Amino acid sequence: MQNLFQPPPGTRDFYPDAMALRRHIEDTWRRVSLRHGFVEVDGPTFEYLDLYKVKSGDEIVSQLFHFESRGEDRTQFALRPEFTPTLARMVAAKANALPRPIKWFSIPRCYRAERPQKGRLREFIQWNVDMLGGETPEARRQFDLETAALCIDTLREFGLASSDVKLVWNDRALVEQLFALAGLPPERYPFGFYLLDRLAKLAPEQRRKQYADNAVTAGEQAFFEQLAAGGDPLSEAFWESLGSNGDFAAYRDAISGMQAHIEKTLALMGLPGYATYDPSIVRGLAYYTGFVWEVVDVSGGNRAVAGGGRYDKLIEMFGGPALAATGFGMGDVVLALLLAEKGKLPANAGVSPPDLFVINALEQTDDAVRQLAILRAAGLTALASYKATKNIGKLLEEAGKAHARVALILAPAEAAEGKAKLKNLRTREERTIPLAAVLAETLAELRGAGDIAP
Amino acid sequence: MQNLFQPPPGTRDFYPDAMALRRHIEDTWRRVSLRHGFVEVDGPTFEYLDLYKVKSGDEIVSQLFHFESRGEDRTQFALRPEFTPTLARMVAAKANALPRPIKWFSIPRCYRAERPQKGRLREFIQWNVDMLGGETPEARRQFDLETAALCIDTLREFGLASSDVKLVWNDRALVEQLFALAGLPPERYPFGFYLLDRLAKLAPEQRRKQYADNAVTAGEQAFFEQLAAGGDPLSEAFWESLGSNGDFAAYRDAISGMQAHIEKTLALMGLPGYATYDPSIVRGLAYYTGFVWEVVDVSGGNRAVAGGGRYDKLIEMFGGPALAATGFGMGDVVLALLLAEKGKLPANAGVSPPDLFVINALEQTDDAVRQLAILRAAGLTALASYKATKNIGKLLEEAGKAHARVALILAPAEAAEGKAKLKNLRTREERTIPLAAVLAETLAELRGAGDIAP
Repeated sequence: MQNLFQPPPGTRDFYPDAMALRRHIEDTWRRVSLRHGFVEVDGPTFEYLDLYKVKSGDEIVSQLFHFESRGEDRTQFALRPEFTPTLARMVAAKANALPRPIKWFSIPRCYRAERPQKGRLREFIQWNVDMLGGETPEARRQFDLETAALCIDTLREFGLASSDVKLVWNDRALVEQLFALAGLPPERYPFGFYLLDRLAKLAPEQRRKQYADNAVTAGEQAFFEQLAAGGDPLSEAFWESLGSNGDFAAYRDAISGMQAHIEKTLALMGLPGYATYDPSIVRGLAYYTGFVWEVVDVSGGNRAVAGGGRYDKLIEMFGGPALAATGFGMGDVVLALLLAEKGKLPANAGVSPPDLFVINALEQTDDAVRQLAILRAAGLTALASYKATKNIGKLLEEAGKAHARVALILAPAEAAEGKAKLKNLRTREERTIPLAAVLAETLAELRGAGDIAP
Repeated sequence: MQNLFQPPPGTRDFYPDAMALRRHIEDTWRRVSLRHGFVEVDGPTFEYLDLYKVKSGDEIVSQLFHFESRGEDRTQFALRPEFTPTLARMVAAKANALPRPIKWFSIPRCYRAERPQKGRLREFIQWNVDMLGGETPEARRQFDLETAALCIDTLREFGLASSDVKLVWNDRALVEQLFALAGLPPERYPFGFYLLDRLAKLAPEQRRKQYADNAVTAGEQAFFEQLAAGGDPLSEAFWESLGSNGDFAAYRDAISGMQAHIEKTLALMGLPGYATYDPSIVRGLAYYTGFVWEVVDVSGGNRAVAGGGRYDKLIEMFGGPALAATGFGMGDVVLALLLAEKGKLPANAGVSPPDLFVINALEQTDDAVRQLAILRAAGLTALASYKATKNIGKLLEEAGKAHARVALILAPAEAAEGKAKLKNLRTREERTIPLAAVLAETLAELRGAGDIAP
């Protein structure tokens, strides 16, 4: 039975502490994106339902929250499950007017109509980074690594090291080399991609059904069964047992050449030791066209924290010109779990302490109201007590609990001379200042503590 | 016919310039809220449909986008049309654990299922500010004005003055005094509030139907007709023509006393000249219980930019304890229109210029990649060209167009000696520096320009 006064299952209430953590995550995503020269965009929270079929086919509908509009334009809308279709539509609509390369990021809330589970909610926040343009092989390789580097650099900004997270990568071209080695004819590659993407999730009898339904040869079956059993296609033993006479050395050299390039580029960027080749990374290769990757939590069973890759055909599908594209997404739910596990949540839930706390021991409130307004108009975060007490000791305790840096004390003895006391709550030093100079003296005190810039 | 590749009617694509303006609006709301000691919260984008009936009755349903969940818990959900029911639910659930007063703000996206029109979209962003607790009359008055002052202070931060916007206010108690003067018996007050709220929107025949349906006396009709015709109940002429023998002076004195208090408090807060009494401000008084107000655009036919008031009964309706509450909301659509009309949009769409632009005239890219990473790791926004050219003049042009403050020039002559050039793009001065000191010298250059703190 639903409880009307609870958030719907799979959604969250963001009370102040949870909201501060969400701000920390979103602000970090945004800050590092801007540093790397990406600009922020966003779209509607809902789109025409049919928009999501363009990329994902009809089967997507069962995973969407959708509803009918009211009024004359009765159409089906759906809450966005991801940002990419919106991005593709927006890029396609203005492809020729946008400066190239297009370097966009967004931080949308997204929705999936499924039963919630740990790490998978019905409503989540997903950071999206996309880089479009750059048609040469060199530019594609560069843009693939620029986006992946932004992802790793951001995780580093959160406090995660290469001992915590790894970039595991693959490439559609390498998967095709793998299929060739296994003896699949090129016309079987689409089925190969389809099966590879699902292999880890299929039970033995489900795999057998796939083999039977798709006339898979005994040799191909042996190959898929070895992969399903965790066999390593980078080992000679894997191919010997299959009796393959393909060019295994060329496959291995292609991988090590690419791995060396990725490792060298990331090292130049100050991110050595993050990248590893992983033939099991597939990420629904029907959509991706080249490089694919995930960033995984090393100690958490390789749980994916982020994932992306190259998708050079998509902008055309949304009515735009042919346009090379690469990008990734990272959700807030798994990231927050990982940061908590690694002890990397910010102190004090990331909430900035107030600059100043006004303590009013006078009978009237006019001076306190006036000083609060002057301090706030200058950009300072200024609090005051709402308690009736004029006990300075108790009010100082409250200021301390709020982690205020400075207290302004308005008390009768000083007020009679047009003065007040300013107390530094870290050094515990206090001094008497003219009421007319509260703002200047507070700024000086905060500067002295290194809390704000001179 | 829908165009799949357009945003749904009444929603918006936020390309970089539009997104920068949205950021400017949201960041300003957030920054001033924090300064005034409010903390940020949020809730789900959708709630149980029935939650919205608690505050607004069944008629709200036709104004909501709603949909059924999938899986076993088939329930109706609705996209939030406003934040208040979520806030009331969240406060009610933890009322006893939350420190008082509760000072919350939120910046949710909200939805209305109606045909879009200028200033009213189907998807919009609404800043919400609420202050709960404070049961004495003094505390209520104080909290009413603290929230209203935050609203005005924020509009001032956007660049709007008291010649642009006004706080127009009313109070449920004053409306009851008005009804008493007009001779309405107390049991007719609920109908009076109902009619007053709709009076400006009803055509003469609709008003006559209301009178007939509700057995309104000839005297009451004359009163409502004078209000509908724009008569001023603060003028003696208004009451003389009605033949009222009520205590008009007491009504007028109550208003001028409250106006003086509001004006004095706002003046202490550095916000003189904003407040005006306006008997036509009603804002659906069934929900509000005391002070009600709007901030209106003076030159735009008093279009409301924000609105709010006191709602002391609501937390109980959502399962919580009796808790005094006051707050307001401000949408982004009307605000953006107003800022544009008043020439108060930020320069350059509010986008911060990059700190530095790396110009690479070398054959290799390793040095450029390494320097970009070092500068970004130090928190600087560093860009580079994606063009193939090594023409320094052309690249400097690109750096200038990006409004970069400093250019780092990597060219063969300097590189051979382990050096580079650093050019200040404002003063046009340039100097040669060691490659190993790029970060330190860039920081020094930006400090010299006052762009970052020492």
